[in-house]
Amino acid sequence: MTRILGIDPGSQRTGVGIIDVDASGRVSHVHHQPLVLLGADDFPQRMKLLVLGLAELCLEFQPQEVAIEKVFMARNPDSALKLGQARGAAISAVVLRDLPVHEYAASEIKLAVVGRGGAEKQQVQHMVGLMLNLKTKLQADAADALAVAITHAHVRATANRLGLTARQAWGRK
Amino acid sequence: MTRILGIDPGSQRTGVGIIDVDASGRVSHVHHQPLVLLGADDFPQRMKLLVLGLAELCLEFQPQEVAIEKVFMARNPDSALKLGQARGAAISAVVLRDLPVHEYAASEIKLAVVGRGGAEKQQVQHMVGLMLNLKTKLQADAADALAVAITHAHVRATANRLGLTARQAWGRK
Repeated sequence: MTRILGIDPGSQRTGVGIIDVDASGRVSHVHHQPLVLLGADDFPQRMKLLVLGLAELCLEFQPQEVAIEKVFMARNPDSALKLGQARGAAISAVVLRDLPVHEYAASEIKLAVVGRGGAEKQQVQHMVGLMLNLKTKLQADAADALAVAITHAHVRATANRLGLTARQAWGRK
Repeated sequence: MTRILGIDPGSQRTGVGIIDVDASGRVSHVHHQPLVLLGADDFPQRMKLLVLGLAELCLEFQPQEVAIEKVFMARNPDSALKLGQARGAAISAVVLRDLPVHEYAASEIKLAVVGRGGAEKQQVQHMVGLMLNLKTKLQADAADALAVAITHAHVRATANRLGLTARQAWGRK
């Protein structure tokens, strides 16, 4: 059994989703929540809330691997900068704990969860709920965090079957 | 005497500059160096190099306050994202050590160092060398890191004279 932490970084809210995956690739839900960063006084304090929030979740749930969405293109330089900052803070929080971090593009996540790289965001969120047997509707950021965790679970299960590492299976160095 | 760490974040190289400032606002050079991040295997490892590099410098030089350039607009979403990630990682490294972080816009730095908000980058670098009595030419990222540290030194010296905090003096909440 491997525990995976999925992160959907955002400078106002960062979604967090934690799942377990067994050797056959079956996934089960462990936890999800948003880290709400808006309460902080200024931007550096938001980053602190984000890093401390992730550190606390790592201590409580002891994930072994981390998955995070790769951002290819943001809408504009301003939102790219904000998103980048949250992403950099989130990655630094987990990489300092020596957790391996795997990055997946939005199209890879859609392919893994819905079966189509061009699926709608709502379909991804719906499928995440089904795959994890959740009774209540997920908020968008938690659903996205769980979706990237599920993607990594599938990639590593495929890799296991083929005797490869997750990076090799997904065609990465 | 207060020790200030200036950071010029970049995803390939992050400039670091450390100065001391006395009660009258006189600055003196302590240290500068680039943190070269290109050697890392992948992006998360780069962020780890950045965070560990800053942590090491904080341990060695014990800065009390941190200054970092505020980015209003990057050239394009892709470079904004990369810069944002480095900036987020750098801020999270120092904010976790409970160091206060002050952000200054490029125009504020130029005004503080050269006296004109529209000064050229080369003028800023030249003035930094003069103000700190450096005999050798500075590399751009180290010069920028020292420049934002000097800016903060001036702002806090002005604030001291007026009996205000640096944030109040600079018209911030």
